[in-house]
Amino acid sequence: MSARHITGFSNPTVKYWRSLRDKKHRKRAGQFLVEGLRLLEDARQAGRMPRQLVMAEGRDPHPLLSKLENAIGDAGGEVITTTPDILSKVTGKSNAQSVVGVFDEWDTGLGRIERDTASIWLVAQDLRDPGNLGTMLRTGDAVGAGGLILIDDCADPFSAEAVRASMGAVFTQSLARARWDEFVPWLRGGAGQLVAASLRDAVPYRGASYQAPCFILIGNESQGLPEAYEAECDLRVTMPMKGRADSLNAAVAGAVLAYEVLAALD
Amino acid sequence: MSARHITGFSNPTVKYWRSLRDKKHRKRAGQFLVEGLRLLEDARQAGRMPRQLVMAEGRDPHPLLSKLENAIGDAGGEVITTTPDILSKVTGKSNAQSVVGVFDEWDTGLGRIERDTASIWLVAQDLRDPGNLGTMLRTGDAVGAGGLILIDDCADPFSAEAVRASMGAVFTQSLARARWDEFVPWLRGGAGQLVAASLRDAVPYRGASYQAPCFILIGNESQGLPEAYEAECDLRVTMPMKGRADSLNAAVAGAVLAYEVLAALD
Repeated sequence: MSARHITGFSNPTVKYWRSLRDKKHRKRAGQFLVEGLRLLEDARQAGRMPRQLVMAEGRDPHPLLSKLENAIGDAGGEVITTTPDILSKVTGKSNAQSVVGVFDEWDTGLGRIERDTASIWLVAQDLRDPGNLGTMLRTGDAVGAGGLILIDDCADPFSAEAVRASMGAVFTQSLARARWDEFVPWLRGGAGQLVAASLRDAVPYRGASYQAPCFILIGNESQGLPEAYEAECDLRVTMPMKGRADSLNAAVAGAVLAYEVLAALD
Repeated sequence: MSARHITGFSNPTVKYWRSLRDKKHRKRAGQFLVEGLRLLEDARQAGRMPRQLVMAEGRDPHPLLSKLENAIGDAGGEVITTTPDILSKVTGKSNAQSVVGVFDEWDTGLGRIERDTASIWLVAQDLRDPGNLGTMLRTGDAVGAGGLILIDDCADPFSAEAVRASMGAVFTQSLARARWDEFVPWLRGGAGQLVAASLRDAVPYRGASYQAPCFILIGNESQGLPEAYEAECDLRVTMPMKGRADSLNAAVAGAVLAYEVLAALD
């Protein structure tokens, strides 16, 4: 297919792409960047196609890239070539072999989550680290979770760090954002057990009576969950803490708990 | 106690501190920086004292800080005050309340690891992400592991990111660096089961026959373990992978496995 070619650093499109590295601009534009052929192929396989595919002119051919170019044409997207220097400005890296996709953001929305399609759902509350968020998406994929629900002020799942840490799971897991006071009525409008790792009034996580669909709630990295949120949970579980610390990394706690729930429900 | 005061940006000590943010310089100097009162207090409680404690002149008093200043005096270390601007240059952040400790690096050394003092030991091979390394240290503390053994080219456990992710566990967990061909003879010179998460010739991780002291081996983030390393393991276990990916984040895999081993051996 024919490709548009952009050569000027001051081209507004180039400026726009660069702006998408910033959370505020992403939020306003509703688009985000995905870098690397592997992640773009993950997206394609999940049926997520970029609006634009950007690569350096004269880039080495690659079978996955050809497949991607064709699929983008079919989906009504655009292939754009540029100079290696401009590509570096966009990605922040000096790799002329790089390929960047410009995607529309999405939000499955609570209302469209079909809770009965999976035994496990992950719920992050006020999780600030995009790496943790991406890792939770990756773990969600591994345990067969239906998706990740983001409560309150979470990191951006479409940041480069979150997308990378998700290893492509951002394209396959459902994603919904909600305030706590939207989430709870939605949850209570159907089947669903809300479980949190907690130190308050908790039973051992091992052998606890988990029920599908099980919503595993993980709180903020430094504050944990607010007390009222924990009180809303149907089950509070605790993991052994043999050392001097009283908590695990948030993504680790979510994973240990999710694998326990998987073993109980599988 | 009296404190040395440094005011010049070009002071060689200031340049030296800044250089410690770089892995190459840390390695040459054998020292590293720890920022923040909480981590410094963790270090103190673990019996690790900085050579120097650096803070801005006129910093607000704090009971933990006073305790730290006294302990440093007793340990033969030095308290140094400087300007908020210089402190920002050292930490890379503009927080005049910040406190920085300059520590000597350590290495427990394989020979000084007492394997019978703990049921679990974590072993990282070629783990490149300092955040993952720090998270493994934190998990190690939580499961009561004896320490972390770093095989081949791992990230620096004394980098700011690793220290921060460890939440202070870097001060309490034993740390030893070794090449694989040093580690295996050491391991086989005593009791010890070497366990890896693997896709090759593996049994389900759940209910596998773990034995103490159990050495949990976690491989490189993108390559996993070399085949020969997996072959050396006494037990290869696999976790369910319900999605499209065939692996977990390295620190997550280590934690899920470590909690399983803890449940089996505890």
